Amino acid sequence: MRFADEALAANKLAAMTYHGDKVLGPQPVRHVAVLACMDARLDTFKSLGLSLGDCHVLRNAGGRATDDAIRSLTLSSHVLETREFLVIHHTDCGLHNRTNEDLYRVLAESGVDAHGYDFLPIPDLEASVREDVDAIVKSPLMLPGIHVTGFIFDVRTGLLSEVCEGDTLGPPATQRT
Amino acid sequence: MRFADEALAANKLAAMTYHGDKVLGPQPVRHVAVLACMDARLDTFKSLGLSLGDCHVLRNAGGRATDDAIRSLTLSSHVLETREFLVIHHTDCGLHNRTNEDLYRVLAESGVDAHGYDFLPIPDLEASVREDVDAIVKSPLMLPGIHVTGFIFDVRTGLLSEVCEGDTLGPPATQRT
Repeated sequence: MRFADEALAANKLAAMTYHGDKVLGPQPVRHVAVLACMDARLDTFKSLGLSLGDCHVLRNAGGRATDDAIRSLTLSSHVLETREFLVIHHTDCGLHNRTNEDLYRVLAESGVDAHGYDFLPIPDLEASVREDVDAIVKSPLMLPGIHVTGFIFDVRTGLLSEVCEGDTLGPPATQRT
Repeated sequence: MRFADEALAANKLAAMTYHGDKVLGPQPVRHVAVLACMDARLDTFKSLGLSLGDCHVLRNAGGRATDDAIRSLTLSSHVLETREFLVIHHTDCGLHNRTNEDLYRVLAESGVDAHGYDFLPIPDLEASVREDVDAIVKSPLMLPGIHVTGFIFDVRTGLLSEVCEGDTLGPPATQRT
């Protein structure tokens, strides 16, 4: 049996108490976007006290500020009116203390040649949070003045700890129309 | 007041009932990864009946199978042992019925020149689900035989409807070691 079939059955039940139709549109009610790791032990709604409709939720391996995360945050702020971002990495991450070379070896065991590919491993957890907050702050695609806070989530305790903060710079002055 | 401060306060309460420490490791208990849109009206845990620790959750603007989503699914399956993927796009998406040119105009109003950038707009919702399931199925980075199901989530009713399914092909035979 596919997990997809279980999910469809669970979804029929969940839809009975779904209230997304009470949220008027695609603009998040709290004007916030959260970028977090895909880790299964983090439920961003529960752990941040979010209600349905409050925030955009962006997640990828590591919670990294990739080009795709920047694309999503750009749309989130310019088109859907978010004005604050949270970045969340976490302890015991699958990317922590790995190197790309380690990961090439794991993939090679299944016949996959990933040589040259950057999986964005995390040698230092605090440094990766700072690096990603910085990448967002400096992105020329962002609106200026969006507050960005970086956190580490502890998967043992469920507690967030703040690492750093910053405000987006926006496009370079020469680019402004 | 920063939303981040509210989130920190809510997190302290949430941590009192957090049970991530009962989930042994970073491998999702149900061996599943879900790729969905960042839309605030979708709580993947509630709408799929997920418990903490069950699945990896990947989210971006549109729920698109970007390079970053492929990076995350690659790590999810090769390193953290997921063996089934769900892809979820949804009705009333901020990317639906937009073009890149529309989006350039919106960004230009804030002085951001995004010309040439691909925001991955969605002209046809069912087609985008098929396209993204197909991209995952054909990615040479994937393990072969992972079942991928594509869905559309209705933000009015909270109901999922299945669009398509497929199985990953894995690396080309010539590449297998």
